[in-house]
Amino acid sequence: MKIELLFSPVQADELFFTGKTTVVIDVLRASSTIIEALSNGAKEVVPVGTVEFAVKVSGGIFGGQTLLGGERNTKKIEGFALGNSPSEYTREIISGKAIVFYSTNGSRAIVKAKYSSNLFVCSFNNLSAVANHLTKLNEDVIILCSGNNNFMSLEDSVCAGMLVNKLVDIDKNLALTDSSIGAMTLFKSFGKNIPKFLSETDHGKILIENGFESDLKDCAELDSTEVIPYYSDNTIKVL
Amino acid sequence: MKIELLFSPVQADELFFTGKTTVVIDVLRASSTIIEALSNGAKEVVPVGTVEFAVKVSGGIFGGQTLLGGERNTKKIEGFALGNSPSEYTREIISGKAIVFYSTNGSRAIVKAKYSSNLFVCSFNNLSAVANHLTKLNEDVIILCSGNNNFMSLEDSVCAGMLVNKLVDIDKNLALTDSSIGAMTLFKSFGKNIPKFLSETDHGKILIENGFESDLKDCAELDSTEVIPYYSDNTIKVL
Repeated sequence: MKIELLFSPVQADELFFTGKTTVVIDVLRASSTIIEALSNGAKEVVPVGTVEFAVKVSGGIFGGQTLLGGERNTKKIEGFALGNSPSEYTREIISGKAIVFYSTNGSRAIVKAKYSSNLFVCSFNNLSAVANHLTKLNEDVIILCSGNNNFMSLEDSVCAGMLVNKLVDIDKNLALTDSSIGAMTLFKSFGKNIPKFLSETDHGKILIENGFESDLKDCAELDSTEVIPYYSDNTIKVL
Repeated sequence: MKIELLFSPVQADELFFTGKTTVVIDVLRASSTIIEALSNGAKEVVPVGTVEFAVKVSGGIFGGQTLLGGERNTKKIEGFALGNSPSEYTREIISGKAIVFYSTNGSRAIVKAKYSSNLFVCSFNNLSAVANHLTKLNEDVIILCSGNNNFMSLEDSVCAGMLVNKLVDIDKNLALTDSSIGAMTLFKSFGKNIPKFLSETDHGKILIENGFESDLKDCAELDSTEVIPYYSDNTIKVL
């Protein structure tokens, strides 16, 4: 079992993912929000690569049971029902609904990896559940960090590194690469106090400036759920 | 003064570098080889983005004073006079000559950053000289790791992180980003024994398998020269 890791989706093209087992991470905030939505009874999340496509999809096949959610550069999108704060995705609002979801980095990363044979969404919230499932699967894994507009983001790298570390804890014989070793090393340096660490990242600081400080706390919660979002046929459902 | 860092050239397009001060790092082996060539009296190094262009350029404007050098996927290229081992670039062979140079990652990274207003080449061999020069310049800096076929490479990241660390040592008030903090953290973990560390990287292992173990020693030498390769008008000369 080999663990490869990308710090940004721009490092590979769509066909790279064909037949692979891929884990997409966007700690702030798409992964955390998708996990929260599915934990609270959303029927499915439909990740899209552009805002225009989100509007098109939501007006069509899904009828009245669809909500538009997400953000563009931290801000809620005009005409969208929901932003990208996990706390907005309460059971009252989203239970039984399909969420068409766009975000600057996370949803686009998922769409890029759509040809994967297995595609999971991971954050700190469900990290151990994902690690245990990957161990059971026993396939080579690509960890795809969503990053920040083609740049590496520390929060995704550290979460990815924690996942690598957990997989290594379970199986000492994993084959690692420069990238997965690098991420694991970053986790060992920064992973001791996740809420504090998140508040010091480039993206964390921007979220705090924009009034989303409480989102950081939600996104930092370790193993708060066993829900593993699984992408198949253009939609994400609970595995 | 702000330090941004890319783990792979694929993270930015050519225009991103316009007007920027950029430092290209390809520890194994292009940076180290270019530094060695210029230290040993090469007139200039002409980095090219394709092998075809190398052949075209060398047959044309430079007449008999030109040597073709470089590698593709670790191996010397058919018809090229020199490979990508620093030790091949001796004073006897290259003094006074122009070297048209292609390598899988390094020369392409340099060509990608060609619109930079300042473009330097750095490896462990000239790290302190580059750090001191950047401090004098006092401009924002982009550190561009050549990486490994769009992937992050630990050797470039750690060398980049050592450069960041040295710049921070000189000026505590530098503005860092997630990427530059990440690289500096990797340096602090891996930078204690550079020769040993290089031999354990993905690329280091491939070089050893292909009989280039002694190159690792050359590439690991810290501050063996003050030569700073500087790119301008399509060629690299000593600053």
